[in-house]
Amino acid sequence: MTTAKEIRICFVGESFVNGVGDPECLGWAGRICVNANKKGHEITYYNLGVRRETSTELKQRCLPEVSYRLPQQYDGRVVFCFGVNDTTIENGKTRVAIKDSIANTREILIETKKLYPILMLGPLPIEDKAQNQRIANLSQKFQQICYELDIPYLDTFPTLINSDTWIDEIKNYDGAHPRATGYTELAKIVQNWEAWLNWFE
Amino acid sequence: MTTAKEIRICFVGESFVNGVGDPECLGWAGRICVNANKKGHEITYYNLGVRRETSTELKQRCLPEVSYRLPQQYDGRVVFCFGVNDTTIENGKTRVAIKDSIANTREILIETKKLYPILMLGPLPIEDKAQNQRIANLSQKFQQICYELDIPYLDTFPTLINSDTWIDEIKNYDGAHPRATGYTELAKIVQNWEAWLNWFE
Repeated sequence: MTTAKEIRICFVGESFVNGVGDPECLGWAGRICVNANKKGHEITYYNLGVRRETSTELKQRCLPEVSYRLPQQYDGRVVFCFGVNDTTIENGKTRVAIKDSIANTREILIETKKLYPILMLGPLPIEDKAQNQRIANLSQKFQQICYELDIPYLDTFPTLINSDTWIDEIKNYDGAHPRATGYTELAKIVQNWEAWLNWFE
Repeated sequence: MTTAKEIRICFVGESFVNGVGDPECLGWAGRICVNANKKGHEITYYNLGVRRETSTELKQRCLPEVSYRLPQQYDGRVVFCFGVNDTTIENGKTRVAIKDSIANTREILIETKKLYPILMLGPLPIEDKAQNQRIANLSQKFQQICYELDIPYLDTFPTLINSDTWIDEIKNYDGAHPRATGYTELAKIVQNWEAWLNWFE
């Protein structure tokens, strides 16, 4: 009946993957799947974003949840976006030390890449300026890991930190999450990313 | 800043919870949350629908996935909708025997209700007439369980089996799932359900 490409995609990460703050309940992940569907593809959209989750926590539940949804007989893919929560200060230090963020991320990516094609988005800017420096630093480390592992990496931090839409929505909401317009802006960046488009050729 | 009611909701079940077939990536679960957000509420929307899952499988992963997303310090709720896959014939018998469907469902509901307020939708009609009889029968069993456990239960089967929108979209797609119009029709039924509305009073 259809010549559409059927792909099942798990989006894995923290609240920004879930789309917290978006009254339209799509976030950037839902929007890029809707966009692909409009082009005639058939996406099964599994959103596995969890609020407040660090990379240490994500490492534990990632493969059980993903492999449960992506049996090997189907065309399954994984998109990651996490890291912001690692950089939050609690009790005088970041929730995850940067060396542990790096080790967690390397392990998550290596283990997942054995089973599925994967893409990674870098952690996103929020309102807090000091935390944004830590996020930008972490994004560079993640980029290096992905380069070494030959995983496409999209660092949207430099673009979004200079986006009035993104930053203003965050300031007017909860200091961390945008709303529909911000997520739409991020979705447009991702859905035009060459590595994402290559999945549908 | 806001007087909205902040609720985190896990929707747990099979492909119909995921919204398979909906090019808009919302399904009925996403649509009822968008509707609640429009009324001024703040829903964190966790969609835990998994394709092909039976109640036997759901029983294993339900609480680990739900409790991970709904820590006790937040206002967490759970909405279930499953059962269709239990009634599928494979190798000459249903994937799950009806007595096991009943036992699984009782256990899932009892264990989840210890931790969260819950609602349940009955299994939904598909194209196959013989399977629809098994689904209708299962829905009556589920209704009885929910009555005994004092859990609100919405049996949409009698409405949807007589809906040309629902049945025609399924026939024109894959024999099981509707598309945007069918999911919208179901969403309208659920978002006007008294038990759902009571969550936001």
